[in-house]
Amino acid sequence: MNLVGKCIYRFGKDSVEGDGSMRELLGGKGVGLAEMTRLGVPVPPGFTLATNVCRYWLDQKTYPKGLQREMDDAVRWLEIEVGSRLGDPVEPLLLSVRSGAPISMPGMMDTILNIGLNDKCVLGLAERSGSMRFALDSYRRLIQMFSIVVLEVSKHRFDRALDEIRSSERVLEDSALSVDALETIVRSFKSIVLEVTGKPFPQDPHEQLRLAIDAVFNSWNSPRAKCYRKLEGISESLGTAVTVQTMVFGNRGENSGTGVGFTRNPSTGEPNIFGEFLFNAQGEDIVAGTRTPVAIAELSKRMPELFEELVSVTTTLERHYRDVQEFEFTIEDGKLFLLQTRSAKRSALAAVRTSVDMASEGLITRSEALLRVKPASLTEMLAPQLNFSDGDPQSLTTGFAASPGAAVGLIAFSANEAVVMAAAGKTVILVTEETTADDIHGMAVATGFLTARGGATSHAAVVARGLGKCCITGAKDISHDLTSGTARIGSETFHSGDWLSLDGSTGRVFAGRLPLKAAVGTNHYLQTLLDWAIEESSIEVWANADTPEDAARARTGNAAGIGLCRTEHMFFDPKRLNHMRAMILANNELDRSAALDELLPMQQHDFEELFRSMSPLPVTIRLLDPPLHEFLPSVEEVTSEIAAARREENWDAAIQLETVRRRIETMRESNPMMGHRGCRLSLTYPDILRMQVRAILQAALVTAGEGFAPVPEIMVPLISSEEEMKVLAEAIHETASSLFAERQQTVPYSVGAMIELPRAAICAGRIAKHISFLSFGTNDLTQMTYGFSRDDSRSYLDEYLKQEIFAADPFITIDEEGVGSLMKFAIGAAQETNPGIKIGVCGEHGGDPESIRFFSSLGVDYVSCSTARLPVAQLAAGHAKLRSEAPSCVSLECSTVPAETGSVANVERLEERSHSV
Amino acid sequence: MNLVGKCIYRFGKDSVEGDGSMRELLGGKGVGLAEMTRLGVPVPPGFTLATNVCRYWLDQKTYPKGLQREMDDAVRWLEIEVGSRLGDPVEPLLLSVRSGAPISMPGMMDTILNIGLNDKCVLGLAERSGSMRFALDSYRRLIQMFSIVVLEVSKHRFDRALDEIRSSERVLEDSALSVDALETIVRSFKSIVLEVTGKPFPQDPHEQLRLAIDAVFNSWNSPRAKCYRKLEGISESLGTAVTVQTMVFGNRGENSGTGVGFTRNPSTGEPNIFGEFLFNAQGEDIVAGTRTPVAIAELSKRMPELFEELVSVTTTLERHYRDVQEFEFTIEDGKLFLLQTRSAKRSALAAVRTSVDMASEGLITRSEALLRVKPASLTEMLAPQLNFSDGDPQSLTTGFAASPGAAVGLIAFSANEAVVMAAAGKTVILVTEETTADDIHGMAVATGFLTARGGATSHAAVVARGLGKCCITGAKDISHDLTSGTARIGSETFHSGDWLSLDGSTGRVFAGRLPLKAAVGTNHYLQTLLDWAIEESSIEVWANADTPEDAARARTGNAAGIGLCRTEHMFFDPKRLNHMRAMILANNELDRSAALDELLPMQQHDFEELFRSMSPLPVTIRLLDPPLHEFLPSVEEVTSEIAAARREENWDAAIQLETVRRRIETMRESNPMMGHRGCRLSLTYPDILRMQVRAILQAALVTAGEGFAPVPEIMVPLISSEEEMKVLAEAIHETASSLFAERQQTVPYSVGAMIELPRAAICAGRIAKHISFLSFGTNDLTQMTYGFSRDDSRSYLDEYLKQEIFAADPFITIDEEGVGSLMKFAIGAAQETNPGIKIGVCGEHGGDPESIRFFSSLGVDYVSCSTARLPVAQLAAGHAKLRSEAPSCVSLECSTVPAETGSVANVERLEERSHSV
Repeated sequence: MNLVGKCIYRFGKDSVEGDGSMRELLGGKGVGLAEMTRLGVPVPPGFTLATNVCRYWLDQKTYPKGLQREMDDAVRWLEIEVGSRLGDPVEPLLLSVRSGAPISMPGMMDTILNIGLNDKCVLGLAERSGSMRFALDSYRRLIQMFSIVVLEVSKHRFDRALDEIRSSERVLEDSALSVDALETIVRSFKSIVLEVTGKPFPQDPHEQLRLAIDAVFNSWNSPRAKCYRKLEGISESLGTAVTVQTMVFGNRGENSGTGVGFTRNPSTGEPNIFGEFLFNAQGEDIVAGTRTPVAIAELSKRMPELFEELVSVTTTLERHYRDVQEFEFTIEDGKLFLLQTRSAKRSALAAVRTSVDMASEGLITRSEALLRVKPASLTEMLAPQLNFSDGDPQSLTTGFAASPGAAVGLIAFSANEAVVMAAAGKTVILVTEETTADDIHGMAVATGFLTARGGATSHAAVVARGLGKCCITGAKDISHDLTSGTARIGSETFHSGDWLSLDGSTGRVFAGRLPLKAAVGTNHYLQTLLDWAIEESSIEVWANADTPEDAARARTGNAAGIGLCRTEHMFFDPKRLNHMRAMILANNELDRSAALDELLPMQQHDFEELFRSMSPLPVTIRLLDPPLHEFLPSVEEVTSEIAAARREENWDAAIQLETVRRRIETMRESNPMMGHRGCRLSLTYPDILRMQVRAILQAALVTAGEGFAPVPEIMVPLISSEEEMKVLAEAIHETASSLFAERQQTVPYSVGAMIELPRAAICAGRIAKHISFLSFGTNDLTQMTYGFSRDDSRSYLDEYLKQEIFAADPFITIDEEGVGSLMKFAIGAAQETNPGIKIGVCGEHGGDPESIRFFSSLGVDYVSCSTARLPVAQLAAGHAKLRSEAPSCVSLECSTVPAETGSVANVERLEERSHSV
Repeated sequence: MNLVGKCIYRFGKDSVEGDGSMRELLGGKGVGLAEMTRLGVPVPPGFTLATNVCRYWLDQKTYPKGLQREMDDAVRWLEIEVGSRLGDPVEPLLLSVRSGAPISMPGMMDTILNIGLNDKCVLGLAERSGSMRFALDSYRRLIQMFSIVVLEVSKHRFDRALDEIRSSERVLEDSALSVDALETIVRSFKSIVLEVTGKPFPQDPHEQLRLAIDAVFNSWNSPRAKCYRKLEGISESLGTAVTVQTMVFGNRGENSGTGVGFTRNPSTGEPNIFGEFLFNAQGEDIVAGTRTPVAIAELSKRMPELFEELVSVTTTLERHYRDVQEFEFTIEDGKLFLLQTRSAKRSALAAVRTSVDMASEGLITRSEALLRVKPASLTEMLAPQLNFSDGDPQSLTTGFAASPGAAVGLIAFSANEAVVMAAAGKTVILVTEETTADDIHGMAVATGFLTARGGATSHAAVVARGLGKCCITGAKDISHDLTSGTARIGSETFHSGDWLSLDGSTGRVFAGRLPLKAAVGTNHYLQTLLDWAIEESSIEVWANADTPEDAARARTGNAAGIGLCRTEHMFFDPKRLNHMRAMILANNELDRSAALDELLPMQQHDFEELFRSMSPLPVTIRLLDPPLHEFLPSVEEVTSEIAAARREENWDAAIQLETVRRRIETMRESNPMMGHRGCRLSLTYPDILRMQVRAILQAALVTAGEGFAPVPEIMVPLISSEEEMKVLAEAIHETASSLFAERQQTVPYSVGAMIELPRAAICAGRIAKHISFLSFGTNDLTQMTYGFSRDDSRSYLDEYLKQEIFAADPFITIDEEGVGSLMKFAIGAAQETNPGIKIGVCGEHGGDPESIRFFSSLGVDYVSCSTARLPVAQLAAGHAKLRSEAPSCVSLECSTVPAETGSVANVERLEERSHSV
């Protein structure tokens, strides 16, 4: 014992002095090895110099008195434990020295292997391993690593020497070097050390060990480490531990080997041990790729007892750590050693299944199971992905990753073209400047969309997410040449009908037909997990649904209601569009009313279907929102029709079309987003409101008569003032009353406002007096609060994100400081004047996990998202509640990786391993 | 005395029982007559039954005991006072009976004249007036009025009878009726009364009087009166008074007459009595227009003593009421009677002069003088007006009255055409679909603008108000025919070069060349008033100035600084525009920087001029704000250039132009208002910011070197977040530091933010940490808060105002509830984090009086308005302070009328008078 107390903690079968609770003292590595040893897991023995040594050393520039003796005792203990001695020329004890701070710190020295080798011991190692090449190579590595890290010799000296010998030997790979050449290298390296340091490479293994430990402690004060601590806010006085561990070798014959495994399949989540193993090998052999590993299961045939032991040991680890483990192990001469274990990275599919399984097994709670699956990772399961297993091709351009998944298909340059091609059985990708409501028919048949303009919440993006289709918007490097009917994407020219591949998860566009991996889709495990999430949530998840098909999907996806039905989408069917245009272009009330009379039964029919699908859940129907000119043909279109009429000398038609053209020009707006739309339409064309309210309530009466329980909620868009809301609520109630009087029947309904304008948020208290629910349209609210047109923002928003002026795209994740403040204020004010008011969110943010967490904290009752996002939102809603109860739970979320990298053939990981073998 | 106290208050030379403080008791009319009598003004004597009688009567359904006696006493007193008796066949006393509540109430019975006439007395009156016609006509009017109001006989009965006699007499005008016919009418009317009521018309004058008083009290409970009280929130128990007054007659010979006058000229404000007079006449004669009145001054020759008396009496009234009086008077047989006096309606010119004069005379205080001139009325003085003295012609169409004044000129359909025509010496009105920044050169030479689109704050409107020119926007009935180069306005077709007249104060458009009245402009009196206003104000008035000419006007107009210099307007000069376009289209940093180097000295030169003009006052310069595509030619323009290049087989040019075209298309935005503009430009093109900051500070250094004291304030537009402001403030300071280091000189400057986005208002506390001033851009803030595009809002905003969903156009008068709340919050937050921060407003609202009052209440330091609005804003700023000190002062503001209606030839007013003569 000395002034700082106990300095060294041993781990070996005879004595384990640390445990899992001592991270502060033993560092991350030390504590893991101690805990494994304590669990009875076979671990190569060793000992850890605790962080108090480092702190003393940092403070006093010297080691505590008595440390040397404690260390000598530890080394002697270790020699006895493993039955070999440091510096023994026949059976030399070889050691690794590693740094290990309580918090992982990439800025510090990591590892020095093969300590204990010298000119004599190298012969013993050659004998023991049966390979002079291996022994010499290990020795040359020790000299190189030790000299660079401990003696501060320049790395270049060794590299140059190696290069010279390689070229004189005419080999490219180190593995092809002869024993003679390796001997030459060792000599050469030793002379470099002598020349640079003025001293020979230390032949005393004890000196090697002492110097290596000094180097670890010194590395605590390296500029990189200091910089990292400053950035991460880690205390300077924390200090690091040093772990000294026996080396083990998997290449001592056919009874040896090395492997990496998972307690459950990291790609699929199946509950069986999974991994790869190489007989008589070390990590390096797998890295070199010269030999093919076998599945871990092969061990059960070749070494059944050892396989049993491995399964038992790793099961113990999984039970102990209560999570799927990814472990590294070596078999040295029939003896199993675990070298490392950690929570396994896994695919979304595996994360879902293992979490549900472990909760079912009682290993973890349902809450833990929920928190272990990242909501965003579900999109990977639910959409097809490009298969990059044959390598990453060069992309043509990159745009906004507007809707995830992948699409591979033939290019169509217009919605009409897409319809024709799809009718011929082709898979189509719609490539346009941007999309408008006019393109819906083409978007419905395309597998993905690529636009040159627009952002993550442009029309194309919103529609794509609604349909669950892949979409890339605002890909700047696209230019359409209308005359030749081609487009340049990046530096290549494409014709309609050419193959194109889109990666909606990264925004990359590829030429040609890339292979596709189909979506996994929902399964029993995901369904179970989502059921738990819904049970846990305090915020409901509703769906946006514009059509009966959407509503069916919403019901299947367990949506708790429809939070947004955009009625305008119902008008784009060509047959309806004609009536719509007639209504808009009507010169008098009579003509307008006639056109509306045609539209009413069509709308009513759609609403009936929605009510049947969702009964008895609420269906929120938004009154007509877009500017009416969106329903009209373009001026160009009409102008060419006029020309045609003139050619045919059809003067009447020409005159009539001329009137239409003039009308369209009058209705044109310079900023349509802030134009004549939303409830402004209801106030200037009250007939439209009356038609829609009748259609909704007649549908409700009809379906109620059939035994359904329709719950219509009529939502007024773009409210900016109390007076608007008052007038329109009255108009709705009057229409309802007169309908109910006519039919001698009633049906319950409610009226609400969409809060999309800053002024509506500011005046929410007053507005709330006239309604029973309000729903934030966070897309428009974000646009107006920031003054960002979502369709035009690409040109600067990218730059903002790059310059880190914004931490996140406010159209994806809600801006808590600005838009969020308005929402918070509005909710408070609304609840004050109308305590029972229901609060919803029906913008795109309703499907974003981080935003859902925020909405939940505001006390929002429901979020409404596209049906494709339902699983993500449901899980996020569960997380929101659980996190609000235990904020520290955040760290429980397990990290997931794309499925393909879950396979063992991962070079990076094996490189890590090679250090310890 | 009785239970309710004194009931009747006499006014006559022997006894005046009321005074000006007894409005509650005597009603408006009674108190006025009492006060005049008390002042020694000759008023036909009479008495008032106080409101306590009415209240008793309403409560008890009977009169207080003793009232009859008090009344008999009063009548007897009156008979002695005037020397004639009620019912006396020779010298009959004739009376008027009028209602008069403490608050003027149009719903009540007004007046019954000629009470006291009957079959006998009518002969006496004929004798006394020398006209049987007059006496009979007076009798017939008494029967008619009394029977309708008191006896509730249907009006139609009398009308029908009159019609019959008119047609049998073959006359159209009552004045042409013979004495015989009038006798027939009186007979006929009396038989109608007998027939309908079953009783003859009451011949007893006392009964007439009693019944008339009953009728006044009854009229308190008439449905119209009740409805009016409900609407106006007047208490039901207030009650009305009844005034009984001697009739006087101006038609008793050449020594009699009647007139109306003003103590000072209501058109010019000159301090002399002004008005018209008709000898031997009554009001009716003036109404009939058969005789021409003479100027009141004529009296000084014909009846010098009486004129002296009139001047003396009305001067007394003016001094007493401390305001210009408009009075009615009658001379009966050489004796003057004042019948009514009230504060005079007057033109703006007169309001200014009389207020300043009266303050100089010590009659009123300076504060009162200021409050007597309505700020908005000044526009009438400061802009030319159409002269409608020859009658109102039919207007072609009506649009937004976007900028006041009038314009008469020749139509130009484009800015270029306007320039050509103006160069040829023509006065031009620019008639376009809408204007853009590209049209500035044409707007600069035009006398007025008329646009088919846009609202009160569209580009054309804003520019027009800045230039002080007349402008009508959003005139819906205009359609341009580009092929024929004509436009239809209303139902007429116009060619370029046709005459057109605009009334910017009402938004009406007229064909042809209407006569114009030149603007009065500022004068000594206005300047004095504005100096007082500036002294009184707690909020400063700055000016918007984009050019050195504007700055000169700002200085002349006593602006306390320049609050907004829009630098983009400096780039539209053709020579500069080319460099600007080169900068925008540059493919690399080098080309961009070269173009900016060309622009820098030009901007610097402009800034130098501004600093010289304003030294030592602050000049706030806004960095480039509009989207860059506003500086580029239109796609159509480039396309036709491409076609031309192709025709000339200039392929290089064609290819280059094609690139430009593509670039322009890429930059197009669907909602430019919310696009790539403002500080977003500074962040994506930092070179532009650096160029502008250098130009500003170099100009400051140069002018400081010349001995001026430049105060540059650099304003960053469209800030939405703290991070933007932080990055840009740093960029400005860095540019400044390196410039100062180069030049070895410094100059003080400050950096501020424009608060135009709701998010900027919400985050103002954080933003304020990085700046020394902030200025609200209330135009954009209103647009974004409401989600109203000001250019497109016409289509629904009109409807909103019509349906009274909005009380005022939020682009004209600040929306206190919404936008105002944001401002209030922002100011509070900014002052908390930066207590010394200067707060300004530089939107259009900075020139609106009502808005200035609100801004002043928020503690805003200055408002900045267009130079043309400076007088209005300065006066409004004075009002704001005075009103905040004494809110009740609001009622002190005298009502002004357009100058031409200030003349006496005002039929409406004479009709009012005719009742009392």
